[in-house]
Amino acid sequence: MLLPPALSDTIIALSTPPGAGAIAVIRLSGPAAFSLTDGLFRGKTLADQPSHTLHYGTLRESDGRIFDEVVVSLFRGPNSYTREDVVEISCHGSDYIVQQVLAAFTRRGARLAEAGEFTKRAFLNGAFDLAQAEAVADLIAADSALSHQVAMQQMRGGFSRELRDLRARLVQFAALLELELDFGEEDVEFADRTGLVALLEEVQALVRRLLRSFELGNVIKNGVITVIAGRPNAGKSTLLNALLNEERAIVSAVAGTTRDLIEDEVSIEGIRFRFVDTAGLRETTDEVESIGVERTRQRVKQAALLLYLFDLTTSTPTEVKAEIEALNPGGQIPMLAVGNKRDVASEAQLHAFSHQPNTVLIAANKGEGLDELRADLLAHARGTGLDQTGASTIVTNLRHARSLEKTNAALDAVLVGLATGAGTELVAADLRQALAALGEITGEISSDDLLTSIFTQFCIGK
Amino acid sequence: MLLPPALSDTIIALSTPPGAGAIAVIRLSGPAAFSLTDGLFRGKTLADQPSHTLHYGTLRESDGRIFDEVVVSLFRGPNSYTREDVVEISCHGSDYIVQQVLAAFTRRGARLAEAGEFTKRAFLNGAFDLAQAEAVADLIAADSALSHQVAMQQMRGGFSRELRDLRARLVQFAALLELELDFGEEDVEFADRTGLVALLEEVQALVRRLLRSFELGNVIKNGVITVIAGRPNAGKSTLLNALLNEERAIVSAVAGTTRDLIEDEVSIEGIRFRFVDTAGLRETTDEVESIGVERTRQRVKQAALLLYLFDLTTSTPTEVKAEIEALNPGGQIPMLAVGNKRDVASEAQLHAFSHQPNTVLIAANKGEGLDELRADLLAHARGTGLDQTGASTIVTNLRHARSLEKTNAALDAVLVGLATGAGTELVAADLRQALAALGEITGEISSDDLLTSIFTQFCIGK
Repeated sequence: MLLPPALSDTIIALSTPPGAGAIAVIRLSGPAAFSLTDGLFRGKTLADQPSHTLHYGTLRESDGRIFDEVVVSLFRGPNSYTREDVVEISCHGSDYIVQQVLAAFTRRGARLAEAGEFTKRAFLNGAFDLAQAEAVADLIAADSALSHQVAMQQMRGGFSRELRDLRARLVQFAALLELELDFGEEDVEFADRTGLVALLEEVQALVRRLLRSFELGNVIKNGVITVIAGRPNAGKSTLLNALLNEERAIVSAVAGTTRDLIEDEVSIEGIRFRFVDTAGLRETTDEVESIGVERTRQRVKQAALLLYLFDLTTSTPTEVKAEIEALNPGGQIPMLAVGNKRDVASEAQLHAFSHQPNTVLIAANKGEGLDELRADLLAHARGTGLDQTGASTIVTNLRHARSLEKTNAALDAVLVGLATGAGTELVAADLRQALAALGEITGEISSDDLLTSIFTQFCIGK
Repeated sequence: MLLPPALSDTIIALSTPPGAGAIAVIRLSGPAAFSLTDGLFRGKTLADQPSHTLHYGTLRESDGRIFDEVVVSLFRGPNSYTREDVVEISCHGSDYIVQQVLAAFTRRGARLAEAGEFTKRAFLNGAFDLAQAEAVADLIAADSALSHQVAMQQMRGGFSRELRDLRARLVQFAALLELELDFGEEDVEFADRTGLVALLEEVQALVRRLLRSFELGNVIKNGVITVIAGRPNAGKSTLLNALLNEERAIVSAVAGTTRDLIEDEVSIEGIRFRFVDTAGLRETTDEVESIGVERTRQRVKQAALLLYLFDLTTSTPTEVKAEIEALNPGGQIPMLAVGNKRDVASEAQLHAFSHQPNTVLIAANKGEGLDELRADLLAHARGTGLDQTGASTIVTNLRHARSLEKTNAALDAVLVGLATGAGTELVAADLRQALAALGEITGEISSDDLLTSIFTQFCIGK
């Protein structure tokens, strides 16, 4: 069998993050991985060594110039990540050395790998399906317990198994339909259509559950976008810093300090909140600042949760209510009002706000009330269904959600066909569409364009 | 033999740069490296596996929660970097996973390694001497062919061998002296003092050569600090960009754009130049900009080379001469005048400058004259001795230079003692000082404080 051109060459890339560090790992995959490394490595002859062994030596040019002292890891295909021969070179974590080594290998015929190309090869060589390959990128990006758990489950094939079950049921259904089609001329309805409808509805219920899980999956993957808005000097940057426990934003007593949107994330009990601090809302003549105000209003629209921060000592409940209504008309976005400076507010001021709904009183600079605020944030996130994760599969990938939507629509068409007594050929065609849409997720059905768009989202070296 | 406390525990650290990437490598070293890993690893029992082998499996908590799928590298002491049992865990390059894994190991008794602690252990276990250990950090930081070559030679023991030779000669001399001391009461001069003086002078010549090489070594390690100064709008940022072949500085037609010092480096034929663009020199009322002007003047004092850039079309040779003298009184710092905008200068203007010494005419925005400028830069660097590198050892480390100075001073004292007929005991004491100073470099003589100050300059995980 001729290999596709993409698999016949040997690719190379730095697989660890760039920058100075103790170790950098350069990875090669392909038929010449061992022989190319032997051309530069002084030590044992690697081609003679068994798989899964480590070898110390030096990498040097033919003129004797030493690039580095290295340890080489050997993986013989198919017992490797890509299922091809793989060599990993562990050298000192210097960008200069890495560049020199990459250049020496490419001069000898290795090709610099594209983003995600190692994982793409693993997929093309059957190491795992497309949904699992995509989970590799999600796993690397995961930065909370939940997003890690979901990506790990998907990478290890949990989602793929569920899809295979779905597919198996649809194939079973399709077989019955095709049987009917074969005997169509005899006008015999082999398949019990009532039973078929029940089976289909069961399958569709599963597809819809997966689709619904995407809203949650998106929150898990991208965090709860939480916009902090409010008048200038209400203490937004101070609150952000207190929540982050670090000096992320520049805090200043001059109103209008925060011009850019500052994003930062904090994980509360495994749920990630992405806090967006915004330019203070005020009429301004400063051009740069007024751009910031406009960006605030746009960002509020994208928020999953809005924290409206106000200064207890200079606001009335009526003012706060009006400001929130202006920012978030009709209360479309879930909102939490946060009254700051409770440590210096008068009894009357505290009393005015203490019975307002969805309102927490804090002193951001002293860290007072933050535990209560964190609890309210968690309660909000859990309201979106985050406590229902359990063991069930959660869809986190927009591409998968789109394919599930297509599957769902095709199943609708099948059901309509069955209900209206449409011809078996038409019903079978819709069913094939449903199967095709499901197959797109795991890559049983894929195109070069699709693969390119998926793997270019990976980092280089993976 | 009881191990010192520092070596009896097992240390762990992330050894690759932090951040998202394909691979992260977590390294353990110490007596419990294998057993601790076995506590989290599901796959083979690592304690039963031979050294220099690779093992695929999962890392998981006792509750079954999977941290990651990993490949584990085993190195049994003394066949490892630290000479202890070492395990390297190659996991997905996610900060979240790395933090979870580090936390799981530290809960089980591993200790987070301090900066440079792996290399410190290698030194304490006799894998290499102190000068070689220090070269590891230099190698990681090296970013030009020459700095890489010098660090590699030092790491592989080139410098240490030269020091051992020096030391051997001094020890030979010391033995002769001690012999004389033993027979002192008989008032016999065994050692031929003329021969001794010749031997000492030879050794001192070597020490002095190494000391002189430090000036060059410093340039190799830190680059040639090249300050670009000149009037506002002479084209400094444009020149910097042209030399760097990228848009590093913000180029603007508004005078006074560059307020901060911008540093960037370019390697010309293996020699690194660190270009410092400076705030334009002019009287200014802008407070921030006037700070920049002051910083320019300070920076000029530290420069190894000064590029004075002027606009050919608006300057006269007399003005340029005066400005350079004001900036660099008496021409203390090597200087190159660079006349910009030669593409729009008149014949008369070009003629006025074409015979000035140390002057290059360029058109920075068109890249004209840059090759000539680069050649002049190289000529300057080579004038400092950079072409004399060859195979000889170059000292790049300030600590080593200080120790060599002490050695040199002690040898002076020995020579004076011999010349003035001082007692053998006094001469021998000075000689021991010289030997001790040399021993500090390789770590034969070292203290905890010294080791701490050296290894804390390393990155974590090395």
